[in-house]
Amino acid sequence: MELIQKGDKARIAAGKMAKMSTDQKNQALALIAKQLMAEKHFILAENEKDLAAGKNNRMNESLLDRLRLNEARLQDMADALIQLTHLDDPVGEVLSSWERPNGLAITQVRVPLGVVGMIYEARPNVTVDASSLCLKTGNAVMLRGSSTAIHSNKAIVKVIHHALEKSDLPSDAVQLIEDTSRETASGMFKLNEYLDVLIPRGGAKLIKTVVENSTVPVLETGAGNCHVYIDESADKEMAINIAINAKTQRPSVCNACETIIVHREWGGLNDLVLALEEKGVTIHGDEGVCGEKIIPAVEEDWATEYLGLEVALKVAESVDEAIVHINRYGTKHSEAIVSSNPDNVEKFLNEVDAAAVYHNASTRFTDGFEFGFGAEIGISTQKLHARGPMGLPALTSTKYILKGDGQIKK
Amino acid sequence: MELIQKGDKARIAAGKMAKMSTDQKNQALALIAKQLMAEKHFILAENEKDLAAGKNNRMNESLLDRLRLNEARLQDMADALIQLTHLDDPVGEVLSSWERPNGLAITQVRVPLGVVGMIYEARPNVTVDASSLCLKTGNAVMLRGSSTAIHSNKAIVKVIHHALEKSDLPSDAVQLIEDTSRETASGMFKLNEYLDVLIPRGGAKLIKTVVENSTVPVLETGAGNCHVYIDESADKEMAINIAINAKTQRPSVCNACETIIVHREWGGLNDLVLALEEKGVTIHGDEGVCGEKIIPAVEEDWATEYLGLEVALKVAESVDEAIVHINRYGTKHSEAIVSSNPDNVEKFLNEVDAAAVYHNASTRFTDGFEFGFGAEIGISTQKLHARGPMGLPALTSTKYILKGDGQIKK
Repeated sequence: MELIQKGDKARIAAGKMAKMSTDQKNQALALIAKQLMAEKHFILAENEKDLAAGKNNRMNESLLDRLRLNEARLQDMADALIQLTHLDDPVGEVLSSWERPNGLAITQVRVPLGVVGMIYEARPNVTVDASSLCLKTGNAVMLRGSSTAIHSNKAIVKVIHHALEKSDLPSDAVQLIEDTSRETASGMFKLNEYLDVLIPRGGAKLIKTVVENSTVPVLETGAGNCHVYIDESADKEMAINIAINAKTQRPSVCNACETIIVHREWGGLNDLVLALEEKGVTIHGDEGVCGEKIIPAVEEDWATEYLGLEVALKVAESVDEAIVHINRYGTKHSEAIVSSNPDNVEKFLNEVDAAAVYHNASTRFTDGFEFGFGAEIGISTQKLHARGPMGLPALTSTKYILKGDGQIKK
Repeated sequence: MELIQKGDKARIAAGKMAKMSTDQKNQALALIAKQLMAEKHFILAENEKDLAAGKNNRMNESLLDRLRLNEARLQDMADALIQLTHLDDPVGEVLSSWERPNGLAITQVRVPLGVVGMIYEARPNVTVDASSLCLKTGNAVMLRGSSTAIHSNKAIVKVIHHALEKSDLPSDAVQLIEDTSRETASGMFKLNEYLDVLIPRGGAKLIKTVVENSTVPVLETGAGNCHVYIDESADKEMAINIAINAKTQRPSVCNACETIIVHREWGGLNDLVLALEEKGVTIHGDEGVCGEKIIPAVEEDWATEYLGLEVALKVAESVDEAIVHINRYGTKHSEAIVSSNPDNVEKFLNEVDAAAVYHNASTRFTDGFEFGFGAEIGISTQKLHARGPMGLPALTSTKYILKGDGQIKK
């Protein structure tokens, strides 16, 4: 019931949003930034309720930290909103135009998607982030966050509505589903009549559930079982630097490396093992890897996203073996080769099936900001619509405009 | 079981297909064209079995006609294959490339999708059409046709395999599901592990079933409840020509017009009614339309795709009323305005939410060939990935290739 009512409102708002100018949208984003800070005490007090409930339910510290808001974090959100006003508006961009022999002039332009559904976990910052990206791209958004963040989310959406009321944008463009029962999530999976796309933001389990159950088109983001392959010809220092960076610079993220594959003839394996151990990384190695602290790797390790200071380490006979392994166990996210052999590099970059393939660089660069997009909706690991880091254009569709002077089909 | 086995084969073949050069793919297409004609007697004999079964089951003549093959139709298929060899190969196309301040060079290139699933009705020509488009774009394809065309489909795929065996392409790139029970169709809806995309080709009911049940990403094609809106300022002759063309030139197709909306102050309504009646079109008119033979329109008419010589006719007070009506009842396919008022034209083209919006031209041009694409996968009525007529690039994805010299994330 809530879904239908709010879906209706969002759909009507989407029609209005599509007509808003870039200035009108930017002005609204700036008003939201201002309002977040003006009502910070209210937001933080509501956030306290979620934190208290979380503590009562023995939520672990890392989850509590994701849930926690404070003045600095609100300021970061406000700053991000202002940053967003400086980015180009993709809506209205002409992608191509041509004339047909019969005189019909065809133009393809970017238009908003319509209504974007977001299902996410206990990070209240996603509420601001998702809303602002959707508004910037002329969409309406329907948010379904976690029950553990419901007070924070309600407060934030209330504040967003206060800001939108002062703007030209319809307040209904941001809808929060307040009933956080399982039924509203599964209801959104089937809300084809109201939602143009559904974007899950959270862990691998949430994403899998959405992909496997949603009939609304999904933008699949996230899971990353990424590899660094060190070829026979790789520069030793560069290879170790890249592998260590990809594994340890921030191990909890999706573009961190989970398996390192080393060519049998590469001379740096022992040094690599030492460097990993020095960083506190637990190694699951295959039979080619020697060392006291090595845990023998089992089949499962090749498919595991550790998201922590653990790594699987495999020895391969050739670049081909590495490619087959990666295409079998990888999640098509980010894959790197370190090599000085142009043929092997070419082969790897062409044959590995992933959103981003790297030569002589860390997988950690797969990110909308590192790509220079200025904003990121997420990192798509699917092949339709958008693949890899998604900037603002990923939240748009296109439309063909045809102008004639009476053309009819013969 | 058949799905998994053939899915496995298709996936392995897709890996090989991605490496094939444009020449290798074109050569294979030419071989298929040749083989179709060389084995025409076999194909036509098998097609006879389907026709005989169809007649036994009292299949109606229009369905029998879709099912029927003959030498001329086989020659058309062979000609289309040769045409396809002349089109640009989208795979490998560089979409954009730039360098980041840290020296990382980023290039976005087109790559094949992988394995394309096709679910379609009793038209054996789709078997050739879908296979050839997928092969040209470096994909493997899994075909699930109708039980009523199973002999024809098996024969055609056998012949395609004969041709592929003489080519560099893997024969496994074309897989036909021979079990045409309901279970294999619904099995394909959930075959996320093997299929990158599922494309239904057929009537509105088939498409709806696939969209509502598939967790594999779907490229939705087809249903078209298209409108022609005739504005107060429209040139009378041009407006009538366009409306008649959009309705009657080929009424059974998705880009044909189903509702005509006329501004109350436009002076040509009576002439339009006469012209429609002269073409044998039954008119469902609202209270603003007078005439002896007019059937009063009911709510259902506004949402009906007649696909025949019937039309709904509505009188509107303004362009705004027309836009609201179209956005409510349309299927976001093709929508036209005939008008000499630039403000109304601009409003209509911007605010009507559809894949193709027309000024002063017939909706019948929404078609990959009419757009100049040289081939057509279908006409997408969804907003993700591709919208409107889909040419070869719609069967591709993209990949980011990043080249560095040791870049690590700080």
